[in-house]
Amino acid sequence: MTSASMVNGQLANSISLDNRGLAYGDGLFETILVRKGSALWLGEHLQRLAQDAHRLHIPCDTGVLAGDCSRLLANLGANDAILKIILTRGAVSRGYSPRAAASHRIVSLSPVAPASQGYWQQGVALGLCQTRLARQPQLAGIKHLNRLEQVLAAREMQGRGFDEGLVLDETGKIIEATRSNVFLAVGGCLVSPRLNDCGVNGIMRQQILAAAERIGLRVVIEAVEMSTLRKADEVFICNSVIGIWPVIKIECMHKAIGPMCRQLQREFESHFYA
Amino acid sequence: MTSASMVNGQLANSISLDNRGLAYGDGLFETILVRKGSALWLGEHLQRLAQDAHRLHIPCDTGVLAGDCSRLLANLGANDAILKIILTRGAVSRGYSPRAAASHRIVSLSPVAPASQGYWQQGVALGLCQTRLARQPQLAGIKHLNRLEQVLAAREMQGRGFDEGLVLDETGKIIEATRSNVFLAVGGCLVSPRLNDCGVNGIMRQQILAAAERIGLRVVIEAVEMSTLRKADEVFICNSVIGIWPVIKIECMHKAIGPMCRQLQREFESHFYA
Repeated sequence: MTSASMVNGQLANSISLDNRGLAYGDGLFETILVRKGSALWLGEHLQRLAQDAHRLHIPCDTGVLAGDCSRLLANLGANDAILKIILTRGAVSRGYSPRAAASHRIVSLSPVAPASQGYWQQGVALGLCQTRLARQPQLAGIKHLNRLEQVLAAREMQGRGFDEGLVLDETGKIIEATRSNVFLAVGGCLVSPRLNDCGVNGIMRQQILAAAERIGLRVVIEAVEMSTLRKADEVFICNSVIGIWPVIKIECMHKAIGPMCRQLQREFESHFYA
Repeated sequence: MTSASMVNGQLANSISLDNRGLAYGDGLFETILVRKGSALWLGEHLQRLAQDAHRLHIPCDTGVLAGDCSRLLANLGANDAILKIILTRGAVSRGYSPRAAASHRIVSLSPVAPASQGYWQQGVALGLCQTRLARQPQLAGIKHLNRLEQVLAAREMQGRGFDEGLVLDETGKIIEATRSNVFLAVGGCLVSPRLNDCGVNGIMRQQILAAAERIGLRVVIEAVEMSTLRKADEVFICNSVIGIWPVIKIECMHKAIGPMCRQLQREFESHFYA
């Protein structure tokens, strides 16, 4: 799948078996859209990576990572791709305890499907996952490598005919979808689930929240119950590869594509479809 | 660190960057003590691996894994080592959803410190970790590759002078230690924390529970509060590499090494120190 990749600044397509990313999921990652050779919001992704790495006490040099990315992108020309960055705690010794302040950088480019505006315009259908997200404030918001919950949730959706799976926490609060963040329009407010206990605070979510403030939308970040979803005027999902997709159905509940989703899509259309 | 390793039956010391074990921690592992060239409870480890793989819907052929292990062990002679098995879901495509029924086998041998009876005889001191384990019944008991909680908990213990860290769940129940299971002796009963919501159901824990039944101890598996720990007559920890270590101190709470721990140690002494 991977077209080109570097490990610690050297072209490579494999890592040592004692890498702590493999052993314990002891690391983080970013998935970045590259359009016409340019990585979208690379600075924001690297900044988020550095902040999350700090929470996990993993050393992160964003300058060095940016250098890796630009060397890899130099050979891509004006093509589209997915740029993935993985930062793991350095391999040092057996056992959970991290003994040295070192990290490993893995940067790779892989093909991306040609941009299609189908989902963006016509919307998608969500299934409801039975897999619940555990509440772990120490890891909440972080895009770390411990993603078994997402794997199990995504697996549930196979063969069910949905485009994405909506995931709740153990108390039944709506948190996110398996690979995207969720927004609701409720009585003119833009509502986003709070992610203090679980979930990934995606770059596209952050971009939307900033845009909403810029264009004067009232923003509410709160615990979101299923009852709020039922009464919501609009629902949409986002991530930094797909942009914003309206949700037209959640299981058998239908939703209309509304003005708030369309307004926010216009704010970002040029990034995804220029 | 690694002395010899195989990936999918071939001698190798690296894996492809698109391995789902690295990408998502989408896999499981076993850590096995090898004494005089023989892997202790290999059958039990492989059986547990197969059961846990089934829960995660990862294909697992224990016969093939056993073949990998014996080929690797053949070159070890009559030496001691740690045998580690990692089983990951096969690399297939980008994204959380697992599309193909395939898996990758990683088997490696690494040096083990010479067996010392110091901790076994004189006991160890536990610190209390602030990191709490999230409750996730779908993953509870499984020795999977999503181990960031253990990394964070083990990191807390650095420089505090303790040998291991005791870990509670978010409700304050005692679950395990960072790399071992916990037992208590309370009023003549052998008490082990229930692992329905989190924790790893270790092979040594299972061996101890079976031995306890065999020798007629009364066994209680239940939610264990800190108040139970305080009134416990004995505390000890175990895993399949260290065997059984008595606990003589938890933070500033002292415990005596008692007859139940010694009796169970005698049941297993030959496995670890023959």
